Amino acid sequence: MTQKHLFLLLLSLCCSFPIVAQEALWDNTAIISPQINPDHSVTFRVPAHKAWKVELTGDFLPPSTVNTPDGPQPAPGRVEMNEEQFGIWTYTTQPLEPELYSYFLRIDGQPALDLSNVYVNRDVSTLANIFIITHAKGDRGSLYSVNEVPHGNLEHVWYDSPTLKMQRRMTIYTPPGYDKGRRYPVLYLLHGAGGDEEAWITLGRTTQILDNLIAEGKAKPMIVVMPNGNMDSQAAPGAWSKGMYKPDFQRSLTPYKPVATMDESFPDIVKYVESHYKVVADKQHRAVCGLSMGGGHSFAIANRYPQMFDYIGLFSAAMRIGGAYQTDSFYNKLTASNDICQQIDRLFAAHPKLYWIGIGRDDFLYEVNKDYRRYLDEKGYKYTYVETDGGHIWRNWRIYLTTFAQLIFN
Amino acid sequence: MTQKHLFLLLLSLCCSFPIVAQEALWDNTAIISPQINPDHSVTFRVPAHKAWKVELTGDFLPPSTVNTPDGPQPAPGRVEMNEEQFGIWTYTTQPLEPELYSYFLRIDGQPALDLSNVYVNRDVSTLANIFIITHAKGDRGSLYSVNEVPHGNLEHVWYDSPTLKMQRRMTIYTPPGYDKGRRYPVLYLLHGAGGDEEAWITLGRTTQILDNLIAEGKAKPMIVVMPNGNMDSQAAPGAWSKGMYKPDFQRSLTPYKPVATMDESFPDIVKYVESHYKVVADKQHRAVCGLSMGGGHSFAIANRYPQMFDYIGLFSAAMRIGGAYQTDSFYNKLTASNDICQQIDRLFAAHPKLYWIGIGRDDFLYEVNKDYRRYLDEKGYKYTYVETDGGHIWRNWRIYLTTFAQLIFN
Repeated sequence: MTQKHLFLLLLSLCCSFPIVAQEALWDNTAIISPQINPDHSVTFRVPAHKAWKVELTGDFLPPSTVNTPDGPQPAPGRVEMNEEQFGIWTYTTQPLEPELYSYFLRIDGQPALDLSNVYVNRDVSTLANIFIITHAKGDRGSLYSVNEVPHGNLEHVWYDSPTLKMQRRMTIYTPPGYDKGRRYPVLYLLHGAGGDEEAWITLGRTTQILDNLIAEGKAKPMIVVMPNGNMDSQAAPGAWSKGMYKPDFQRSLTPYKPVATMDESFPDIVKYVESHYKVVADKQHRAVCGLSMGGGHSFAIANRYPQMFDYIGLFSAAMRIGGAYQTDSFYNKLTASNDICQQIDRLFAAHPKLYWIGIGRDDFLYEVNKDYRRYLDEKGYKYTYVETDGGHIWRNWRIYLTTFAQLIFN
Repeated sequence: MTQKHLFLLLLSLCCSFPIVAQEALWDNTAIISPQINPDHSVTFRVPAHKAWKVELTGDFLPPSTVNTPDGPQPAPGRVEMNEEQFGIWTYTTQPLEPELYSYFLRIDGQPALDLSNVYVNRDVSTLANIFIITHAKGDRGSLYSVNEVPHGNLEHVWYDSPTLKMQRRMTIYTPPGYDKGRRYPVLYLLHGAGGDEEAWITLGRTTQILDNLIAEGKAKPMIVVMPNGNMDSQAAPGAWSKGMYKPDFQRSLTPYKPVATMDESFPDIVKYVESHYKVVADKQHRAVCGLSMGGGHSFAIANRYPQMFDYIGLFSAAMRIGGAYQTDSFYNKLTASNDICQQIDRLFAAHPKLYWIGIGRDDFLYEVNKDYRRYLDEKGYKYTYVETDGGHIWRNWRIYLTTFAQLIFN
């Protein structure tokens, strides 16, 4: 044993938790899971020596169906793993297409993470392991990976929102070379319900997508501002004074009653960004887009401030009329709302350079967005429409960001 | 069902993973774990309806002992949980002192996280749940919590290291009010072996400690720079082009052969910080400290650049002589090394305002640090010494940072 090895052994004996892993029958440090194979299949290995059944659930498996109070619903695929060696459960997928994938385990029915894989994303209150499949430079997996390219910086920033009467947190990406002095356009990128100012970074891979698109010359260098769209919170769970609460779609536990909407309070964000960052502060150099609730926020913000943005993107947008999210009859409700129709008239009279709508064919908001397109078509308002496979999922939102980011500031 | 509830139901049905939790026998969303009780005891609840045995391992339980090839070694405490309701395993601790605590589960012997608690820290390759106990404002738990105080910003920054011939990533805290224009002193805060530029933020709670100490007027507003101390890496696992590899103390898989040491390459960091941030660039306004390997880095950096820092902190320092970490006979090896002795002479001839040494009584580096103090005592070199309970653990390093941060820049 060399002196270095002795030192490392002593160190690992002193760290509180590694020792417990080492004490286990199964030396966790020797297990590689997931293992990405040369043919782009993936092998998972889970130590569970007393388990009767170990299952793998992941968005790379053929979808399954679950029963709910509202009838059968599609669910992520789920397969049984095999106990190939005693106590080590294994499963190897088919070769996978380039993508960022999520998964978790069920050990005797109990949800569990693959603890051999330290890469874990939180989606609202659910943790899942992730991995990325890349076949070749420039494919989707490569775009979501950290590559040997110049990197932008990422900042967690606190700003004052006089409209909401609180300090709030947002995440800001500045492109490579930002310190060299020139001024940049700004993309405001909004998250969905249950998300926060970290969602586009962790689940959305925004840093990697922008770094890679900029390096390939496919997107203009830009600042990306990711605010928190929950008017009853200062920041992501755990990042503000409410402490380590359990995230929830409902969020009924927060001490704040919202005193303004996202669109009403949005100028606080723009004001902070334009006074603290090297930006070009005009309509041609501002874009706003968002997913789901954030798509609805983008809709409302663009409507309220028709002179603010030349680029507007609605990703699987959940739009509100009269304060309520619309899940059906959107065309009728929209045409019955004079205020919003007039706002849309004013917005298109200001000739935005791009009004972009993207949605998945299986999205529960598909009909709402179809109704909205019918309205825009009847008015003769120009927009770009992209329809993809799949539903209301991050895979689509990463694709929409990748597409939208290449179309703006040109 | 209100329209809002319908929308939220549809949304949750569309999100890939929450649906799987909802499909379970046990509605995970209804389980609160950990629950912090009014008497500061903590109740854990784990759904595991087919398990024979569920155990809880945490640093708040009385320590246990495990057998290793080197004999019995202390290990974190471990208790069996009770199946109080069918399928829900429960354990309630004694009332706990203010602290940030870590834990994980063993379900039928298999390590698992408490998935009702989304707050998870990574320590090298091990994930563990965390929670914080606070009794009153100003106690240790409060100091590690996000409170309703002005918040500093946190930035992940890429800089060029010509000495190491690579782009590298570091984390930089700027204090509340940084945007108002004045210049600040800088603390360089270094991690240990197996750590990276994120360790002091996640495990060390640096953002919270600094925000709170500054708000209470106990520490001077300062910039804190947390570089990556692994000369064979650009950044934390997953944050650079090596991809999502499994972290390891040995790190034998990295593509870089180190071409310089941390102390040799350190001026690259100082140069970037002093040219990009509003700092006072003199000895009186620079401090360096670090834990374990980072304590050794602080030792070596202070020795190499005696005119750079007025404040030097060694936290459970692992010091090197002739390239090797010392675990015994440090006094003899140090006195036999003319080079290092001369460096130390030059350093103390420059009269640093504070040379601070902290270590736990059970630390495996206790004797090495005792030998070093013997050497300093014989030379008559002034230092401040703090000895705490416990060993080579983050609990101590958070305490040392809290103490050291209040002593510098006064």
